[in-house]
Amino acid sequence: MNLWEKNVRKVVPYVPGEQPKASNIIKLNTNENPYPPSPEVEKIINDTDYKNLRKYPDPNCSCLTEAIASYYGVEKEQVFVGTGSDDVLATAFLTYFCSEKPVLFPDVTYSFYDVWAELYDIPYRKIPLDGDMKINVDDYRCENGGIIFPNPNAPTGLAVSTGEIEEVLKANPSSVVIIDEAYVDFGTQSALPLLEKYDNLLVVQTFSKSRSLAGIRIGFAIGSKKMISYLWAVRNSFNSYTLNPITTAVGAASLEDDGYFKETVSRIISTRERSKERFKKLGFEFGDSKANFIFVTHPKVPAKELFEKLRKENIFVRYFDRDRINNYLRITIGTDEEMDTLFDFLTKELS
Amino acid sequence: MNLWEKNVRKVVPYVPGEQPKASNIIKLNTNENPYPPSPEVEKIINDTDYKNLRKYPDPNCSCLTEAIASYYGVEKEQVFVGTGSDDVLATAFLTYFCSEKPVLFPDVTYSFYDVWAELYDIPYRKIPLDGDMKINVDDYRCENGGIIFPNPNAPTGLAVSTGEIEEVLKANPSSVVIIDEAYVDFGTQSALPLLEKYDNLLVVQTFSKSRSLAGIRIGFAIGSKKMISYLWAVRNSFNSYTLNPITTAVGAASLEDDGYFKETVSRIISTRERSKERFKKLGFEFGDSKANFIFVTHPKVPAKELFEKLRKENIFVRYFDRDRINNYLRITIGTDEEMDTLFDFLTKELS
Repeated sequence: MNLWEKNVRKVVPYVPGEQPKASNIIKLNTNENPYPPSPEVEKIINDTDYKNLRKYPDPNCSCLTEAIASYYGVEKEQVFVGTGSDDVLATAFLTYFCSEKPVLFPDVTYSFYDVWAELYDIPYRKIPLDGDMKINVDDYRCENGGIIFPNPNAPTGLAVSTGEIEEVLKANPSSVVIIDEAYVDFGTQSALPLLEKYDNLLVVQTFSKSRSLAGIRIGFAIGSKKMISYLWAVRNSFNSYTLNPITTAVGAASLEDDGYFKETVSRIISTRERSKERFKKLGFEFGDSKANFIFVTHPKVPAKELFEKLRKENIFVRYFDRDRINNYLRITIGTDEEMDTLFDFLTKELS
Repeated sequence: MNLWEKNVRKVVPYVPGEQPKASNIIKLNTNENPYPPSPEVEKIINDTDYKNLRKYPDPNCSCLTEAIASYYGVEKEQVFVGTGSDDVLATAFLTYFCSEKPVLFPDVTYSFYDVWAELYDIPYRKIPLDGDMKINVDDYRCENGGIIFPNPNAPTGLAVSTGEIEEVLKANPSSVVIIDEAYVDFGTQSALPLLEKYDNLLVVQTFSKSRSLAGIRIGFAIGSKKMISYLWAVRNSFNSYTLNPITTAVGAASLEDDGYFKETVSRIISTRERSKERFKKLGFEFGDSKANFIFVTHPKVPAKELFEKLRKENIFVRYFDRDRINNYLRITIGTDEEMDTLFDFLTKELS
């Protein structure tokens, strides 16, 4: 080791799902939307005035925060935006979780949470999901320096009700409570209405899943004005200009085409429900996913074996080699055609 | 104060130069390039396959890191990219400056350095510039947990030689030394050749100034493979996907059009040298700037007064209300036409 290396931060980074470059694959491993973004996105990209790129962008990303505020019926000072919800969540960890007490999140959940906690030296405690792999909100009544969980949870896909989230907020007035709603549009009630009563709630969403824009990198948070102002202060202590003008315009255009959004989301929900029936027929077990993926296990075939066989067929799904979930596969809902190919293979394999 | 606020990180953010939205202004306040980006940028934006945005981008930004590596004659594992050089520098602070000893930087320099140090609780010590507002490299021999300065320095525009930087590296084998070369293309020698001998050197550059792409948000760092791998590990512990595919393609296209780059940079240098003569005739005092701005003071007219008068004329320059420099203006080099308007006003005002 060189002398200078002793002062270097050594971390174990998050490992995202593979992004294979081949085009002849069925990619059901990173919860991307199988449908392209709204055609309005193409128009707005073609409208870019490239000459304007010589100037710094609007640091407040007003065109996007205003579009989000208007869409969700909040004020623009209640909106924070970042480079994907990972940027928003990481910035939220750094901003709100400055206590000596542990931050609470589920033991089986989005695996970036403990990475951020480690990065920023934030103490944390994992709260086990119950026997049905559900979040039991009563477990979030112990002393803590903050609370975060996804709703619906990932990779289980299981949701809690707004009433249950309100119980967490009621029990924790001294903590910031972050609800990570990356998958909320696929059939879960958002916690947004609770903002009227609780100014310690932060709701985080993304354009990467339901809005088919994983590539453009937009995430956002909605909270009380006070809460959001702290987040902007930390952001502006890190990088004043994050989203470029093409990105903010694309985001705003996508929000305007609500018909397209609702249609593609409803197609994914239909495919998901049909897929549940087909998984069931094949003997798979799974919870009632409200996300754009299903988390399945099979009593007879080890998940890892199936994962590898699927990969050989150029069907990519997600396998996590981790406690409690190492016999499960997280399978993103693709197009009907992609799911047919998957089920054709599974039917052959399991018969 | 609400109960939850006591655990919130409270910071004083960096304040960027104004980004007024009016179009009839002369904007010489944020060191943007007065010329648009290469026309190749327009082509590559129009080539965007918007449908592809449904998928996550390449987390390694390979098309951009490879283009940078090839342009600068290094290997792609020696290149890190981020959302502007602010993102790269902030990530570098978090990665490399984990000592109890203070990080050293000049007292008059880029004002984001102490903001990052405060954000991440990094101890730091400001080393005063000498009486001519120059960096004296002998001052960087004391015990430290890292060193960073811009070359040329901002807002002075004054450069040190590669030999002087080598002295800093020789004296500090236990520290990471970051040279922030945001303005290097306007006439300073880069420290890049020193990478062959020093694996504790990190050179940071940006597409925002010489490449006319402040709007697109690209910064990069070049260092030893080991150094760069630590930076990617921290990046991937924060956000796996930062640059979208439009951004990386724009960056790569800009690097390919080297003729355009060299021509616009040389125009800015010519305008700067002519501007120096005109400032001198008007009685201004200033150092020998090697950047795309000049840092001027006038023995008879207070800088703040001039700043406000210029603003009324819709000419925006930068004034810093800070120790040692509160009688200076940092004036970005615009087009010849913009500079004519500036000097017409100054001539009237000072006669």
